[in-house]
Amino acid sequence: MGNAHPTIIIELLLVKFGIRFVGVKLGILGLGTVGTGTVQLLQDSVGRHPLLRDVEIYRVGVRSLDKPRAVKVPDAVLTTDLEAIVNDPQVNIVVEVIGGLEPARSLILKAIKNGKHVVTANKAVISRFGDEIFTAANHAGVYVMLEAAVGGGIPVIQPLKQSLSVNQIHTVTGIVNGTTNYILTRMQTEGSSFDDVLADAQKLGYAEADPTADIDGLDAADKIAILASLAFGGRIKLQNVYCEGIRQVSKTDIAYADKLGFVIKLLAIAKRVNVSPITPSLDHPISVRVHPTLVPKAHPLASINGVYNAILVEGEPIGQVMFFGPGAGAGATASAVSSDILSLVATLQASTTTPNPLLTCGHQDYCEITPPEELISRFYTRFLTKDQPGVIGKLGTCFGKYDVSLESVVQTGFQGELAEIVVVTHDVQEGDFRQALAEIQTLEAIDSIPSLLRVL
Amino acid sequence: MGNAHPTIIIELLLVKFGIRFVGVKLGILGLGTVGTGTVQLLQDSVGRHPLLRDVEIYRVGVRSLDKPRAVKVPDAVLTTDLEAIVNDPQVNIVVEVIGGLEPARSLILKAIKNGKHVVTANKAVISRFGDEIFTAANHAGVYVMLEAAVGGGIPVIQPLKQSLSVNQIHTVTGIVNGTTNYILTRMQTEGSSFDDVLADAQKLGYAEADPTADIDGLDAADKIAILASLAFGGRIKLQNVYCEGIRQVSKTDIAYADKLGFVIKLLAIAKRVNVSPITPSLDHPISVRVHPTLVPKAHPLASINGVYNAILVEGEPIGQVMFFGPGAGAGATASAVSSDILSLVATLQASTTTPNPLLTCGHQDYCEITPPEELISRFYTRFLTKDQPGVIGKLGTCFGKYDVSLESVVQTGFQGELAEIVVVTHDVQEGDFRQALAEIQTLEAIDSIPSLLRVL
Repeated sequence: MGNAHPTIIIELLLVKFGIRFVGVKLGILGLGTVGTGTVQLLQDSVGRHPLLRDVEIYRVGVRSLDKPRAVKVPDAVLTTDLEAIVNDPQVNIVVEVIGGLEPARSLILKAIKNGKHVVTANKAVISRFGDEIFTAANHAGVYVMLEAAVGGGIPVIQPLKQSLSVNQIHTVTGIVNGTTNYILTRMQTEGSSFDDVLADAQKLGYAEADPTADIDGLDAADKIAILASLAFGGRIKLQNVYCEGIRQVSKTDIAYADKLGFVIKLLAIAKRVNVSPITPSLDHPISVRVHPTLVPKAHPLASINGVYNAILVEGEPIGQVMFFGPGAGAGATASAVSSDILSLVATLQASTTTPNPLLTCGHQDYCEITPPEELISRFYTRFLTKDQPGVIGKLGTCFGKYDVSLESVVQTGFQGELAEIVVVTHDVQEGDFRQALAEIQTLEAIDSIPSLLRVL
Repeated sequence: MGNAHPTIIIELLLVKFGIRFVGVKLGILGLGTVGTGTVQLLQDSVGRHPLLRDVEIYRVGVRSLDKPRAVKVPDAVLTTDLEAIVNDPQVNIVVEVIGGLEPARSLILKAIKNGKHVVTANKAVISRFGDEIFTAANHAGVYVMLEAAVGGGIPVIQPLKQSLSVNQIHTVTGIVNGTTNYILTRMQTEGSSFDDVLADAQKLGYAEADPTADIDGLDAADKIAILASLAFGGRIKLQNVYCEGIRQVSKTDIAYADKLGFVIKLLAIAKRVNVSPITPSLDHPISVRVHPTLVPKAHPLASINGVYNAILVEGEPIGQVMFFGPGAGAGATASAVSSDILSLVATLQASTTTPNPLLTCGHQDYCEITPPEELISRFYTRFLTKDQPGVIGKLGTCFGKYDVSLESVVQTGFQGELAEIVVVTHDVQEGDFRQALAEIQTLEAIDSIPSLLRVL
């Protein structure tokens, strides 16, 4: 820890005089997809953590002031001078969502030097300049948060840094690039070739015009370097990450793999090598790599399809845990960026006399609960009935009387003398369904209703 | 916030005089499965978060001092007087892992009243007495942590309280009871009846002698009440949770569901009702329920099998995220309990002049990375060869020369004039494999090696 920076001194004074620290000023660098999603989230605080209301969008740095935008930001907040934002003494947190290496790296370093906390979604900068950035941050006594850099909206950075860090982690295996997983999934399900699916994915916007960073595994390499660093508590040189993309994966191989019981996935793997999971020896080195891999169909990662991401963490004593979710997109990434902002706000407000609001129970009131009879669901019901004509008609009539719309009614066979009929409903109000069922039970043709289940 | 309790005053003094607060004393109530797992984890701090070394196992409360135990705890630490632990002014954190309603509830309340933070794995107490407990905790200015109460080792409580709380959550759907999921999975895969599988599960220790709490859905109801409370920011009365178990699920229904494209799972669901996911209206009430449910086979929860748990959270803007892992067991639960202890230690040590060590980058050194050629993996390789006798023999000989052990060599067909041969290896050292491959490429019979993939 270096000397306390100005923000900390102000906080100390506020704490000393019993004043709660309210209002955190954000300087957001960039108003592209992720920036816009983040501003939208922060401008609509209803139903979200109340602490977000303490956040002020104070400055937003953009390339051009005149561009039409999906969000309304007051003119006084917008600026093209990004340097001015990271130098502004009013700004508490700099949110870097411009992407790319420069000027992102320099702006992050300047913000840190000026005592500002940083939230970034920039895996390229963190995986290349993490050493420089975190050394500067530790020196300045500020936090650099990066939940959005890996796995889009999936909370994985925080669990690795916190909850899971009580484990001796031996392997992190991820599907961390949505574009390649989308391409491989379509090759698998359609039997198409790589080139055909890539061309179509580019048309549909799932792959970029220059897809190199994704399909050659470079994006995944950035991400696994970051995950490995957190899982194994040491820095990773990006040039030590072995990296192979999916250009060479052919539809022939996907077909053979399928016959052998595998699916092909681009996996990013960080692993303590040559270690028995029973007696992990912690002085073994690690391997960090990205390559297409035959994954056994029963493996948890085998069923992660399309643009979804998943990260499997293995360690002792926890065993296997997996995090699954959208790996990209404005909304998901905005969720991750905002969760970092929330953590910082909580940390800035917490003090020895004010508990951390993310750890306390913040609600006092009871939720309003809908009575079961008002719930809307689909139902599956199995009837045993006398084997006589018109039973299905009677069932249908009775359900209709109570507004219960049916998706299917099938006589599935016999149990002894009795006919077995399976009914699946559309979405219906549970109260209506129960009334219909009560009336049906009184019908002379009905023997019993052995099963009643809900359908998701 | 009530008045500052003694621990806080001591911390304030320490901060004032620039002394870092080191050493947190645990009072552990109970040394059963979870307590033993937690002590084992804390006693072996190598490869775990360094902050755990600041934790002292100061008192452990047990029923009998003489019982043989799987962990060594000094005699002076063990006591049968649980009251004395929660009243001991030296104890900072009380870890309640005795389970059951009483004396757990009273001991938790006494600990809180005495200004101690609490870590508990007790879903029954929290779901029934959460109101009383959190009101007391807020009054005393202490934290009550409960990661282990739901989903075993899966980090789900912390993500719901923190990362995901920036979203407007509309649904939480969980497979949160391992016993019932184990029974339903076996009924599905074996076509067996509920009674047969239950009897076998009891023999194998996957179900208790009195299985009521699990199979009637009561355990899942406790857990979804807790998850709903966090997701929707309000308390939940347990009697408002609709609850149906799996006794009525028959093998007949599982077979029909399978034909219809569903698997049957015991789901615990908390949901804002009658809400369109596009425009969530946040003043709608919620429904909280547990019942066996037909789940479409493509749904992320459909493939969660055996004793595993998974919790799917849906909200805006994040979309769907799912957390998957072991829902029970000493190790997994110990991981969750220890992660709560870690969070508390970090919070107690953090101050306005000392940053929260869970948010900073705590490592300085580079990881040692194994060179790729020393890695052990399985490989899949496809060869195109001249169609002449003895090619497979030549491949086998060459691999053998470099210690590359083969799992299978199959001639899969022809591409024009060329024979296609697929080789899958056992675990081999990559350097050996590459050398063999280099030599094979020089063989006259080999046309090309179009594919080289790794096998997980």
